[in-house]
Amino acid sequence: MTSARFSPPGDAAEIEAGTAFTPQFGADGLLPVVVTSAATGEVLMLAYMNADALARTLETGEAHYWSRSRQTLWRKGETSGNSQLVVEMRIDCDQDAVWLKVVPGGDGGACHTGARSCFYRVVEDGALVRRL
Amino acid sequence: MTSARFSPPGDAAEIEAGTAFTPQFGADGLLPVVVTSAATGEVLMLAYMNADALARTLETGEAHYWSRSRQTLWRKGETSGNSQLVVEMRIDCDQDAVWLKVVPGGDGGACHTGARSCFYRVVEDGALVRRL
Repeated sequence: MTSARFSPPGDAAEIEAGTAFTPQFGADGLLPVVVTSAATGEVLMLAYMNADALARTLETGEAHYWSRSRQTLWRKGETSGNSQLVVEMRIDCDQDAVWLKVVPGGDGGACHTGARSCFYRVVEDGALVRRL
Repeated sequence: MTSARFSPPGDAAEIEAGTAFTPQFGADGLLPVVVTSAATGEVLMLAYMNADALARTLETGEAHYWSRSRQTLWRKGETSGNSQLVVEMRIDCDQDAVWLKVVPGGDGGACHTGARSCFYRVVEDGALVRRL
């Protein structure tokens, strides 16, 4: 799925090797976004953007996402105070995934549970161990 | 969507705070997987696992994914030689995203283009700049 807010893709070579930013949203209109700390490199969360969220992130320099559970656009931190200032945005080979390096605001928590990262549990011997 | 290969989820508190590994696959039967280099922390790729791929990754310690373009299970590196040895697997708060820390094998490339990471382009002023 393409979006009227972004250019349509060229051929495979242009998508992979070109300089045109032509993000490819999924059938659900969403793009997965890997969010890491610009300071430490830690993976903080996996979130989703629709075209509006991507456009607003680019316009404002602050991370905006699409909440799949609430079905709404949301500026990260608008209720928690834990905003995310975007330092760098990358796109992958197929232009269907984004990597954001961010500076977390507020108390530094990225997760709705209050944790610094949503990935606070390791899978070990089939069970989960909290380790952050 | 749950899978017969993994336990069904408990309530929200158990999913978020519990020790039971109850991965939640999407409506398409897939789970997004953030893959980083265990050595450098760099994000190498965003891939997808179905229940089989997740089970085989846990059994073998080598990353297996579901190829959405080829609609097939695939052991990373089976044709390229660029296997991925799993050092750590994490799951997020909602248990619907995985983070793998891996040691890349072969020539170290994670991307089908031959690049070390699929995220070899930065979005700058609306265009893409290659920088890896």
